[in-house]
Amino acid sequence: MSIQEKFSQLANKARTAALLAPVQPFLDQLDGYLREQVAEFEPEVQPLVTFTLGHSGKKIRPILVFIGGWQGKGKEVPESLLRAAAIMEMVHLATLVHDDILDDADTRHEVETVTARYGPHAAVLLGDALFAHALKLAADFPTPEVCRIVAESTRQVCSGEIAQTFARNQNDISVERYLRMIDLKTAELFASSARLGAFLGNYPPKIVDAIETFARKLGIAYQIYDDLADLIGDEQRAGKTLGTDLESGKRTLPVFYWLEDFPKDQHAQLWDDLKSSPPDEIRHKLIESGSVKRTADKIEQLLTEATTILETVAEAPPSEMLPPLTGWLRDALTRLTG
Amino acid sequence: MSIQEKFSQLANKARTAALLAPVQPFLDQLDGYLREQVAEFEPEVQPLVTFTLGHSGKKIRPILVFIGGWQGKGKEVPESLLRAAAIMEMVHLATLVHDDILDDADTRHEVETVTARYGPHAAVLLGDALFAHALKLAADFPTPEVCRIVAESTRQVCSGEIAQTFARNQNDISVERYLRMIDLKTAELFASSARLGAFLGNYPPKIVDAIETFARKLGIAYQIYDDLADLIGDEQRAGKTLGTDLESGKRTLPVFYWLEDFPKDQHAQLWDDLKSSPPDEIRHKLIESGSVKRTADKIEQLLTEATTILETVAEAPPSEMLPPLTGWLRDALTRLTG
Repeated sequence: MSIQEKFSQLANKARTAALLAPVQPFLDQLDGYLREQVAEFEPEVQPLVTFTLGHSGKKIRPILVFIGGWQGKGKEVPESLLRAAAIMEMVHLATLVHDDILDDADTRHEVETVTARYGPHAAVLLGDALFAHALKLAADFPTPEVCRIVAESTRQVCSGEIAQTFARNQNDISVERYLRMIDLKTAELFASSARLGAFLGNYPPKIVDAIETFARKLGIAYQIYDDLADLIGDEQRAGKTLGTDLESGKRTLPVFYWLEDFPKDQHAQLWDDLKSSPPDEIRHKLIESGSVKRTADKIEQLLTEATTILETVAEAPPSEMLPPLTGWLRDALTRLTG
Repeated sequence: MSIQEKFSQLANKARTAALLAPVQPFLDQLDGYLREQVAEFEPEVQPLVTFTLGHSGKKIRPILVFIGGWQGKGKEVPESLLRAAAIMEMVHLATLVHDDILDDADTRHEVETVTARYGPHAAVLLGDALFAHALKLAADFPTPEVCRIVAESTRQVCSGEIAQTFARNQNDISVERYLRMIDLKTAELFASSARLGAFLGNYPPKIVDAIETFARKLGIAYQIYDDLADLIGDEQRAGKTLGTDLESGKRTLPVFYWLEDFPKDQHAQLWDDLKSSPPDEIRHKLIESGSVKRTADKIEQLLTEATTILETVAEAPPSEMLPPLTGWLRDALTRLTG
């Protein structure tokens, strides 16, 4: 990495930190809470759990739990919210560990993946153990409602992943089906994190629903962004292996938009050509055709819808907690698409 | 298969059926209950779930839930016991689906494994979905206690599997560590199935503990038997791929006993030789050295301890429900070791 690139990376990190400043005290507490959990695993597994917690990225799901449930400034974060946030982060980490096996990915959040470091066998099992521990924490709540939210949303995440695995290299996948898959695969965990937070924050049902819908829209926008980055992003900046979607035969939104300019009977051939093209050519094709721009517009539209939903309900949660999330995603998108 | 072998297989099946007759009405109801669950999964996953339910074997864990919680003859099986039994079976199936990936196994309960049929990627995800659905069913109980038992025991099963994966081909594994691993990996789910049943059956804590300990001893005995069958059994009779333990570098009780006759500094070489020996030679070595006999004695000892524990507590559960389990295992052992 050149000094200029390094500097630009540091500047980006500083900008993200500024955007996330309002939730930083909460994230610091969460880090401590997650570290404490390591001792709760069997001794044999502890080093792997510690290693995996080092993979923890932007912690969007815990932030959603927090924003969903936190009722005001200055107050201490309640233990129930911290625990719920840790649960959602662990479920997310479990799915990442399993995802990386499926994608054969080497790097995630700038470090080696579990599957690259310890092998796919250990990764299967560690994902299971993380998930089981998350549900044990959920079962420690006095009401089974928490378990219910976590179990139900995890089931949907799995279903989304399975649907996506079966859809690989199939030519009859529609944009609608792609959107449904990312709703299950990603947005569901965003939505249930926010719902769990709002439930623990004792908001009335109307507000709980609005917060959940906000998070779902954000989740869809985020996954579209993440898929776009996989196609046109820079590995060093992203801190993870890119190009895995094309390699594994996964069609994402920019590709759907790009294909729409061509007659249907050419799609299979065009798709095969795209997959074997060098990264620069892929980037060029998608930018020149306007499909990157269309994708960015779709993300912007979803983010606007997300914030509008919250404005329509009366007692929305502390509004200063929301801009960091849509703002952060807008910022990342601008950096990616220039 | 020759006609004689086919006949012998049918005779064995008939004998098992006779032994399990007292719990058969319960197992029939459970089959229906499990089939109904398929519709609860996302449409994309339903064919895989149906396929996996076809893998369901002897249903020892559901039987333990049932024996643990059923309070008398003639009564209808309560829905709570059925659901609890389905939960434990689904958790077990989830671990089987993941296990088969680790073992690269082709056959299980006489049919193709999920990983052989649909690929390891789908198998990782399907295991996750089954587990998540089991926990959703657990979360539907009015008390989080059920979730707690299921989540905690699943975590221990994972830990046992991870410990065993890391212990592969290591020369410093002791019999004690092997026993601890199978306790976590197998006996824990037996124990928690019985505990869950007894909990739902409202037995006093002393009885709940006794039933759990009975099941744990049975579980350890069962895993030792299963490991023995993997070494000296017949694939056609067992209905699954055998010899996977040696191939994957897993040392099990008969091997530990066999090695004890030799000086420690020869163990690594002997182990390598054994792994590359043809199945008949392995069988011969283990039988001639007396280590198969010692293993069978250990299983018998555990089964005796298991039934003794129940006799020491006053109001044990219906005793006619217990012989099928220890009896079935004794019978299988006799067939295996002649």
